Amino acid sequence: MSAWQDNVRRVEPYIPGEQPDFPDMIKLNTNECPYPPSPKVSEAVAAFAGSSLRLYPDPNCRSLREAIAKRYGVAPEQVFVGVGSDDVLAMAFMTFFNSEKPILFPDITYSFYDVWAELYRIPYVQLPLKDDFTIDPKDYLRENGGIVIANPNAPTGAELSQAHIETILAGNPGSTVIVDEAYVDFGGTSALPLLEKYDNLLVVQTFSKSRAMAGIRIGYAIGSGEMIGYLTAVRNSFNSYTMNRLTLSCGVAAVEDEAYFQEITAKIIATRERAVERFRALGFIVPESKANFLFVTHPQISAAALFAALREEHIFVRYWNKKRISEHLRVTIGTDEQMDALFAFLEKYIKKNGQA
Amino acid sequence: MSAWQDNVRRVEPYIPGEQPDFPDMIKLNTNECPYPPSPKVSEAVAAFAGSSLRLYPDPNCRSLREAIAKRYGVAPEQVFVGVGSDDVLAMAFMTFFNSEKPILFPDITYSFYDVWAELYRIPYVQLPLKDDFTIDPKDYLRENGGIVIANPNAPTGAELSQAHIETILAGNPGSTVIVDEAYVDFGGTSALPLLEKYDNLLVVQTFSKSRAMAGIRIGYAIGSGEMIGYLTAVRNSFNSYTMNRLTLSCGVAAVEDEAYFQEITAKIIATRERAVERFRALGFIVPESKANFLFVTHPQISAAALFAALREEHIFVRYWNKKRISEHLRVTIGTDEQMDALFAFLEKYIKKNGQA
Repeated sequence: MSAWQDNVRRVEPYIPGEQPDFPDMIKLNTNECPYPPSPKVSEAVAAFAGSSLRLYPDPNCRSLREAIAKRYGVAPEQVFVGVGSDDVLAMAFMTFFNSEKPILFPDITYSFYDVWAELYRIPYVQLPLKDDFTIDPKDYLRENGGIVIANPNAPTGAELSQAHIETILAGNPGSTVIVDEAYVDFGGTSALPLLEKYDNLLVVQTFSKSRAMAGIRIGYAIGSGEMIGYLTAVRNSFNSYTMNRLTLSCGVAAVEDEAYFQEITAKIIATRERAVERFRALGFIVPESKANFLFVTHPQISAAALFAALREEHIFVRYWNKKRISEHLRVTIGTDEQMDALFAFLEKYIKKNGQA
Repeated sequence: MSAWQDNVRRVEPYIPGEQPDFPDMIKLNTNECPYPPSPKVSEAVAAFAGSSLRLYPDPNCRSLREAIAKRYGVAPEQVFVGVGSDDVLAMAFMTFFNSEKPILFPDITYSFYDVWAELYRIPYVQLPLKDDFTIDPKDYLRENGGIVIANPNAPTGAELSQAHIETILAGNPGSTVIVDEAYVDFGGTSALPLLEKYDNLLVVQTFSKSRAMAGIRIGYAIGSGEMIGYLTAVRNSFNSYTMNRLTLSCGVAAVEDEAYFQEITAKIIATRERAVERFRALGFIVPESKANFLFVTHPQISAAALFAALREEHIFVRYWNKKRISEHLRVTIGTDEQMDALFAFLEKYIKKNGQA
């Protein structure tokens, strides 16, 4: 080993989720939207003047922040945008979780929270979900340096009620409470109205799921102007120009097409509810989901074996060989046709391997 | 002040450089390229399928890393790409400058180095440039936790010779030495060939200047596979998907058009050399520049006053009211027409205010 390596920050290499690429695949593993983005986005790309790329983008991202602010009824100064909600959340961890006290989040939740805590050397405690994979808000009424809650939670899809979110906010005036609402548009209730009452709340959302734009990398946070100011100062100390010109154009086009957004989220919710029934008819246990995925388990079927069998068919779902969830699969809601193909396979598989 | 604010990471708000937007302006303040990107980039945008944005981009950025690797004669595993060289450099600071010993860089250099050091709480020492604004490599042969050198340096445009770069590399086997080559394509000599001999070298370049794509946000680092591995592990702990699908397509198109790259960099160099002569004819002192800008001062003219007068004319250059450089202006090389307009104004201004 060379001497310079003594000064290297070592981190557990985080392995990004599998991104298989087969022409015939059914990709239900990373919670992407099965529908394309708004046609207005393709129009924005087609109308984009490549020559303008010679100039830096607007570091303040005014156009996109104004469009988001208008959509959510807040001021542009209350909006922060970043390179996907991962960028926004990582910056928020760095900005707001700057204490020696541990931050709190569930043991089963978005898998990046502990990764960011490790990266920024933030102490943390993972509080166990209840046996039914829901959060007990009372667990979050203890000393802490910050709280992050995915709501609806991933990979469970379970929603924490607004009353419980409010319990956590009210009980922690000394902590920033981040509510990560990546999946809220599929039937969940946003904490945004609570911003009027609680200045320790930061709500984070993304264009990757309900706006069908995982490939463009846009996430955003909404909070008090003061909170967004702190976040922006840290971001500007890292990189003033994270959002490129094409991204800003596409983002504005997407957020302005409210009708399309309503149309595709309604379709996904309808497909999800049909999928719940079909999973249950095959003997799966399926908790209620307010997200664009279902977290399923089957009393007679090994999740790992089913995951592998689906993979053979080029049907990709998500499996974690982790404590408490190693008998579950997370299945993203695809189109009706994709779900039909999934269930056609599952019917055969269960007939052969299970006792449903 | 609310209680949650006790846990906030406070940073000096870094104010991004001015981005004026007047239709008639001559923008020579942020070292952008006066020419558009390769026409292949516009073709890539026009050919881009908006529907593909529903899917996450390739987290490994293979297409772009392969194109860059091919261009520079290295392996794709030796290439890291990020959201502009600011993202790449910030990640590199976090990854490689992870010691209690101070990192070293010049007192007059790219203004983000101390900002990143502050953000990541890396101790640092700013070593004064010599009176002629060049680096004495012997200054860098002292205990340190890492070194970063912009070469050519900004805002001076001065180049440090390869022999001197090698002195620094050879004298610091215990430190990562980052050579920030944002401006190298305008007549400088890259340190890339030194990678064969020194495994503590990381070279960082950008698409924002010589590839005319400040608006797309692409920077890259080239180093040993091992070094790039460390950097990638830290990046993946922050955000696995920093490069969006449109960016990757545009980046590949740009780097593959070598002829266009050679054409515009040669034009900028030719315009720069003419500008040097014209500045000198007006009595300015102009050190040799290997960048797409000149760092000029005039014995009889106040830099601050000239900066303000140019601004009135909507001619934007860069001025810092800072120790040692408050009588200098940094002027980006524009088109010949833009430079003609600049000099037409300067001739009148000097006649009126100076004794040239």
